[in-house]
Amino acid sequence: MTDAPLAPGATIGILGGGQLGRMLSVAASRLGYRTHIYEPGAAPAEQVAMTRTRASYEDMGALKAFAESVDVITYEFENVPATALDLLDALRPIRPGIRALAVSQDRLTEKTFLEGLGLRVAPFRDIPDAASLTRALTNLGTPAILKTRRMGYDGKGQIRIDAVEEAPTAYAQMQGADAILEGFVDFRREVSVIAARGTTGETVCFDPGENVHDGGILRTTTVPATLSASQRTDAALLAGQILNALDYVGVLGVELFVTADGLVVNEIAPRVHNSGHWTQGGCAVDQFEQHIRAIAGLPLGDGRRHCDVVMENLIGDDMTRLPDLLRQPDTQIHLYGKDEVRAGRKMAHVNHIKRA
Amino acid sequence: MTDAPLAPGATIGILGGGQLGRMLSVAASRLGYRTHIYEPGAAPAEQVAMTRTRASYEDMGALKAFAESVDVITYEFENVPATALDLLDALRPIRPGIRALAVSQDRLTEKTFLEGLGLRVAPFRDIPDAASLTRALTNLGTPAILKTRRMGYDGKGQIRIDAVEEAPTAYAQMQGADAILEGFVDFRREVSVIAARGTTGETVCFDPGENVHDGGILRTTTVPATLSASQRTDAALLAGQILNALDYVGVLGVELFVTADGLVVNEIAPRVHNSGHWTQGGCAVDQFEQHIRAIAGLPLGDGRRHCDVVMENLIGDDMTRLPDLLRQPDTQIHLYGKDEVRAGRKMAHVNHIKRA
Repeated sequence: MTDAPLAPGATIGILGGGQLGRMLSVAASRLGYRTHIYEPGAAPAEQVAMTRTRASYEDMGALKAFAESVDVITYEFENVPATALDLLDALRPIRPGIRALAVSQDRLTEKTFLEGLGLRVAPFRDIPDAASLTRALTNLGTPAILKTRRMGYDGKGQIRIDAVEEAPTAYAQMQGADAILEGFVDFRREVSVIAARGTTGETVCFDPGENVHDGGILRTTTVPATLSASQRTDAALLAGQILNALDYVGVLGVELFVTADGLVVNEIAPRVHNSGHWTQGGCAVDQFEQHIRAIAGLPLGDGRRHCDVVMENLIGDDMTRLPDLLRQPDTQIHLYGKDEVRAGRKMAHVNHIKRA
Repeated sequence: MTDAPLAPGATIGILGGGQLGRMLSVAASRLGYRTHIYEPGAAPAEQVAMTRTRASYEDMGALKAFAESVDVITYEFENVPATALDLLDALRPIRPGIRALAVSQDRLTEKTFLEGLGLRVAPFRDIPDAASLTRALTNLGTPAILKTRRMGYDGKGQIRIDAVEEAPTAYAQMQGADAILEGFVDFRREVSVIAARGTTGETVCFDPGENVHDGGILRTTTVPATLSASQRTDAALLAGQILNALDYVGVLGVELFVTADGLVVNEIAPRVHNSGHWTQGGCAVDQFEQHIRAIAGLPLGDGRRHCDVVMENLIGDDMTRLPDLLRQPDTQIHLYGKDEVRAGRKMAHVNHIKRA
């Protein structure tokens, strides 16, 4: 692929077939692209895609055939194995690029990278062994959170530690996984910025959304967030700084803590993000289309919000509220097409729309 | 299928795989449904559907297999052959029902039906032979429009007649097709109402849109339309009257002429309608989702508009404007995934969004 925009009719390969891949596929269709979903398991995304491959990320033959059938490759999750990425990267452009993935796959690398940019992050320590955890707890104080360096999402792979004495038990629960300890951040609220960078280097931010979590899982995102004008500017600037430093192409989610001393970066996700689903109801170009525009080399949408929105996730048994939600005015429903309702499983989201 | 709403995971069969089927398929996915597209030719809709059958409407085996694989059947165009409909109707519910299709498949039946409801239509005469055309022209005056009773769309199958002497030539161009003559309506503007009726009989209208045609093809729809409050009420009332008279389930497009003496019904379409595409940018629930909600037995969206919108079709070479349109703020683009650009062919539409 050259720097010319991807022509209508081209095929975008998507690694991962969950709800993010599903909504990316629909957005791609609006721009005239076809999609090919690569997913080892059940894939809600295949219901709205042209082609699907069901194979593991270790199946080099399937990966090669997939790459050769598409024009550009993107992904809906950051934990794609490195061997698969290397094979794919040799055959087709992967956007966002491998460096962004490598940085965000590992909490230690990510925080080190962010600190290197001069951004504030939660205090952290590498925990290569049990002894280092006790030292780090003494140093950072409690409460603190022990996290696996890799593969965590929706609060999984995280343990809160309230006293130094809990160190051995907590460390044992990591089952030998590489870990880091994060110090406590006293924050007023959490917001996130959904930012995008195109192939020409242009960057665009959507308005920050204010997030409420429960049990490590996002419940709601509200736009506009409660932020001062300078905090909004800071949020956009730091997102742009991260995008540029990574020579990033695509949509990036940046989770921020709002503290008395300013913004602290919690984590980044090199993909469309649950806290950006509100854009489907609030903007002419939503985060999914923004991502497709970016990786296709098209001009980015301008990110302007024409409505206020409260996005609400429907998790597990929340699905019983569906009949009521269908009757609510100004409410957009997005079901994910998952066969089985399970506790803690994201099944759908709704966007409650208000005139801005 | 009982009167209970269609459960998430159910499959909706769609006859026709063009842009309307494509956007219906995407809307169905938001409500957790899968789709199966039945289309004899190239099908843009298959790019976002779970299943597709490529077979003719005369292939009774394929039609039977299609029906048996789905839970409910709908269509994106009104010219489905009657034999196919009869076969399908015996196996699964078709929504909107066969009566609505029969009425709108034939201009003569349609106008007779509308007149029977007490609604105003353009003066018309049945034209079974050449002699009747001369008589009708003398009677209705010129200019008048000779139209095939069946299968016309986008101005096809229509001939304008400016003088009685043109009758033989015009009739010959019909090539023996059943025809009607429509008298001239002196209208100020054309508007359309996109209305919906659910399985419980509830009806909802979107705000009327104002249409501009060129060469028989819709160019733009603007919302709000230039209408008085009483005209708006009349439009909604007459749409509701049509829906109820047909015991209709689904979305119906009603094209209206605004005249000095009130509203005149031009034609009805028993499906989602090009002049309703603006709802994708202006409403929480668009016409496509409204149709899916109706045929699935779900509550209807409330039709409220939260933004003003100008919808513009991209026809044939209009596609060269795409790079510019991608750079315009507050502009939603919907490409139809058609491989070949042809003169007069609808390739895409855009919604220009303004705060209401």
